[in-house]
Formats: sequence, C-alpha cells, structure tokens
Amino acid sequence: MAVYTDVTDEDLDAFLSAYAIGEPIGFKGIAEGVSNSNFLLNTTADRFILTIYEARTEEAALPYFVGLMDHLAAHGVACPAPIRRKDGAIIGRLGGKPAAIVSYLDGLSVRRPSVAHCREAGAAMARLHLAGRDFAGFRANALDVAGWSALLEKALPRAHLFNAKMVEPLHAELQHIRTQWPDDLPKGVIHADLFPDNVFFTGGAVSGIIDFYFACNDAFAYDLAIGLNAWCFEPDFSYNVTKGRAMVAGYQSIRRLERTEIAALPVLARSSAMRFLSTRLYDWLAALDLPAGTLVRPHDPRPYWERIKFHQKALSAADYGVETA
Amino acid sequence: MAVYTDVTDEDLDAFLSAYAIGEPIGFKGIAEGVSNSNFLLNTTADRFILTIYEARTEEAALPYFVGLMDHLAAHGVACPAPIRRKDGAIIGRLGGKPAAIVSYLDGLSVRRPSVAHCREAGAAMARLHLAGRDFAGFRANALDVAGWSALLEKALPRAHLFNAKMVEPLHAELQHIRTQWPDDLPKGVIHADLFPDNVFFTGGAVSGIIDFYFACNDAFAYDLAIGLNAWCFEPDFSYNVTKGRAMVAGYQSIRRLERTEIAALPVLARSSAMRFLSTRLYDWLAALDLPAGTLVRPHDPRPYWERIKFHQKALSAADYGVETA
Repeated sequence: MAVYTDVTDEDLDAFLSAYAIGEPIGFKGIAEGVSNSNFLLNTTADRFILTIYEARTEEAALPYFVGLMDHLAAHGVACPAPIRRKDGAIIGRLGGKPAAIVSYLDGLSVRRPSVAHCREAGAAMARLHLAGRDFAGFRANALDVAGWSALLEKALPRAHLFNAKMVEPLHAELQHIRTQWPDDLPKGVIHADLFPDNVFFTGGAVSGIIDFYFACNDAFAYDLAIGLNAWCFEPDFSYNVTKGRAMVAGYQSIRRLERTEIAALPVLARSSAMRFLSTRLYDWLAALDLPAGTLVRPHDPRPYWERIKFHQKALSAADYGVETA
Repeated sequence: MAVYTDVTDEDLDAFLSAYAIGEPIGFKGIAEGVSNSNFLLNTTADRFILTIYEARTEEAALPYFVGLMDHLAAHGVACPAPIRRKDGAIIGRLGGKPAAIVSYLDGLSVRRPSVAHCREAGAAMARLHLAGRDFAGFRANALDVAGWSALLEKALPRAHLFNAKMVEPLHAELQHIRTQWPDDLPKGVIHADLFPDNVFFTGGAVSGIIDFYFACNDAFAYDLAIGLNAWCFEPDFSYNVTKGRAMVAGYQSIRRLERTEIAALPVLARSSAMRFLSTRLYDWLAALDLPAGTLVRPHDPRPYWERIKFHQKALSAADYGVETA
C-alpha cells in the first residue's frame, strides 16, 4: 500500500494542465506498488494511473522505465502505456517530484496463483523478453550478485537480530553463488520483479503486467528464476513442482530455453532468493532504528530464507520441474 | 490511507457470488477513510466501492450507517447507495468481517477548501439534515460531551507527554463546556465527521458525501460546528471568518438556523474541537505504547488545541461570521 505524497488541488491542476486528457472527475490514492505513490485518475475522457516517483525509485533511470513501458506497449505487451504531455514529454513534476500518467489496465492480481496462472505468467514473461529485444535503452541490474551481496554484507553484522541460525549459512551461500555464477547466458530486458501482485488477469488470461521499476538488462533465465520463487512456493514454503513445471512450460511455449539456461537454473534460483532475502533483511534491520510510531512495515525476510533452504537441496533444473534431457 | 484486510481471490469470489453486479475486472485497495478497508471494485456492469468494516467501526451500528446511506441516497442526497445482495441483504461477510458494496461517486475532495467550497459544503450539510428527518433509525452520539470527556479523562494523566501546557486548560475547558451545554437544540441525523476529505466536488458543486461511520442523532448545529472547525481554519490555525460566513450562509440557504442554535454556536464549536482533540490525544498517547515499527500514524492533536484557543476568545456567533441580530 503506498501513498506517500499528499497532492494538493493546485498541484494536481498545474500538473494536468500539461496534458490533453480531459478534466479530472476522480482522484484516489491506491494501494499498488510499494516504492511510489499511485493514484487512480478519472477524467472526462478516460481512466488513468498517475504515479509520483518517490526517493526509492532511481530518478536517473525513469526514462529507461517509462521508455520501456512505451516500447513494450507499442509491441503488444499488455502493460501500462505512458501518456504524452502536450509538449511530448512523458515525465513531469508534481509537488516537486517526478511523476507520469499511464493508461489504466483492467484485471485482478491473484493472491494464490493456480497452476494455470503460473503457466500464463510464464508465457507473459517470455513475451515480454521477446518484445524487449529491440528496445534501445540499457540499465544494468542494480540488484545483481554484486548489488545484493553489498546489501547483505551491510546486514550480516546485525542479521542475528532477525535469526541467529541464518548468519553462518548466509556467508556460505554467498560464497557458493559467487563461485558458481554463469556469465554466458542470453540476456535482454527483464522485469526482475514479476510477483503475482504485478500481474493482472481477466478470465484466466494475463491482461496486464505492471511495476517496471526494477526492470533492467540481465539474463532472461534470471527473470524466470525470480518467477519460480515468487509464484511456485506454497504458504508453507514447500515448492509446488506442478506450478514450476507449468510456469516453465508456459515460458517455453513462447521462448525456448537454451541448454545453458536450464543448467544454470538452480544457481539462478538461489541467487534470486538471496536478492529478495538481502533487501528484505536490510530493510527489516533498518526499521529497528526508526522511532516508535513510524509508518513502516517491511517485507518479512523469512519466506526467502525458507526458499534458500529448498534451493540448497536442489540438484538440477529437474527439481524445479524442468525437463533436462 | 487504509487497507487493513488482505482479500484472497476465493474470499472475493464467494462474497461477490451473493450479488448480481457482473464479474469483477478490477479490484484495488484505495486510500480513503481511516477506520475501514476500502476497495475500488470494477465489474463488467459498473464501478463500486467495497468496504470491509474493521474493528474500529461499531458492528452493531452498521445497519444504522448503511440504512442511513440507503435512505439519504433515496432522498436525493449525493452519497454512496448500498447495493443489495440477491437475498436482499446489504451487509455480508468477507474474510470473516462485515462488508458492503456501495455505488461509486465521481468527484474530488479538496485539500484546501475555498470560500465557495465552504458555502457548498454548508448547503450540502443542511440538505443531509433535512433528508434525514424521516429516517427511522436512531443512534446516540458515542462522541457527545460524555463520550469525548471519558476519553479525555483517560488521556489527561499522560497528556503532558504531548504538551504539558495543555493539561490545566483542558481541565478548565471540560468544566466550562459541561456547565454551558445546551440541551434544547433541534436534533436529527447528523454526519458528525464532515471533513473536506469526506466531500467530493465536481465543477465546484458537491457531487458526493462519504464516510457515514460517525453519523448519529444529535443537534444539527453541532454538525455545523464540526464543519466550521474542519473547513474554516487556515493551515496557520487562524480562523477564516469569510469561509465561516460562507459555510453558515450556505447552510441557511437550505435550512434556517434557530435563535437557540446561533446562541449555542460558540460552545458547540468548543465542544466539537474538544471531541477531535480528545480522540486524537487518546490515539497519540496509545501509539506511544506500541512496539517500534508498528504501522500507526495518529492524527496530530495540535490543530485542535490551537482551535480551542481561538474558540475560548470568541464571544458570540458573530465571531464565527454568523449574523446574530
């Protein structure tokens, strides 16, 4: 849930005067996304989402994120299409912060994805990978192994405050991933945060992918590994291999995985689980330093610690439901 | 901002199956109201607001609140109209909590009301008072003088933690209001929380009044006093008598105030400021006892303390911009 910026009438009017999208008749803060403030904007012309980019979103990368949405929407991916201002720009400023308006997408995200949802999400991810191939922008993954391990190393000295049993295995895990990391995988634009709350469905089909604010250029299979972590574990932290098989099959129905990608899947799954564990642990520890009453509810690191324990026992991509023959 | 309950797909489907309002194609938590969880629900038929009633809303009073909206909407007040289920009920259960669906209203609330907004809000309040006259329900005001002073007395022993200079004057204020309280005012259904964020405008006219979860039967002029506190003070806590005059004139363009109501306005203004000060101070002190990191941001009591200082100097309704001749 996220509305960090209080928008005054004057600021909204000034911002909207740069657009040719009709008069506002509704403006409601919505609980979507965690890093930015999002509002549902109804005008006399149509429905839109207005996003104010808060400090956690890297401002220098906004042209990449918004340009990518523009590119993907133009190439048939169901994602928010940025609306141009009368002067042609797609990023303006509202209340002193960068802000943009994008098209509204119908659909509901699922809290408990079914096997069919996993298949559809896998196929949608592959379509995104293909549609992004001729996108001109480039952004390195700020949360690659070097990125998340830098956060993890800052967190480790206090990690015992969260779970003392985790500290030594995390050191070992970091070493393992560093030595096993494959550098020769096919790369391109990836979403890098394709959790169920970022995918809308209508009637069982994907109707929209949102929240491109971690998108970057990295290994396609790394995105798939993030997806397996995000969609295919049950609330009791068990891996549902049927869902994993469905997500990979959905993906491969659109884009065939190469042999090197399949071989790398176990280490990619470990690394992507470590990426979310590291940011969540870092945020969880940072929240300990805030004064009482501060409005913070960090994501729980534990589900990713439990995933890592599963991944450590996986021997090959077959353990994730991927045919390795 | 308020989404306290996480709704699963299964729970939503089960809840909606009792209604004949089409299939859901959008469901977003919205930052509206502070006591309940509100969602924008789009279906193949129309747009709606779905509210899940949380612990702070008195469950026994829900039939009053929802029945009142039903009555007012049927009597021409622009307010959310409850949607009946196929079995005729207007309150169901979602995820184990009471929940209802109401019609969606266009319009934007104003952060900084103009004089014209104050006039329109006053007129809308009077229309609500008239439309409520033949509503059969009855609910005593849980935050009348006895109600808020009980909260205040719980808060006073620790009130110095908020502001030590406030403690002695608050005792005196409580005594003053108790001795001056008028019991002979015209009464009926009042909104009792008509703040700017509960009033929608389109094109300068009131398009909707929302959030009836403090509505009750009490003095009409008490509602107006709440409105003067909520709409007519500037951010520097100065009273804008032009706005006050406009709100009262707007009110009187629909319902003429009686002489007793005008005479009582100063003590009603003090009492309604004390009502909000008491609940805010109580919540502010309660938040001190919560563990670090808890998701709480209580309303600031200070603006109401500053209002009380203004009210203490007011001699008659003339100081609020009301003609007393």
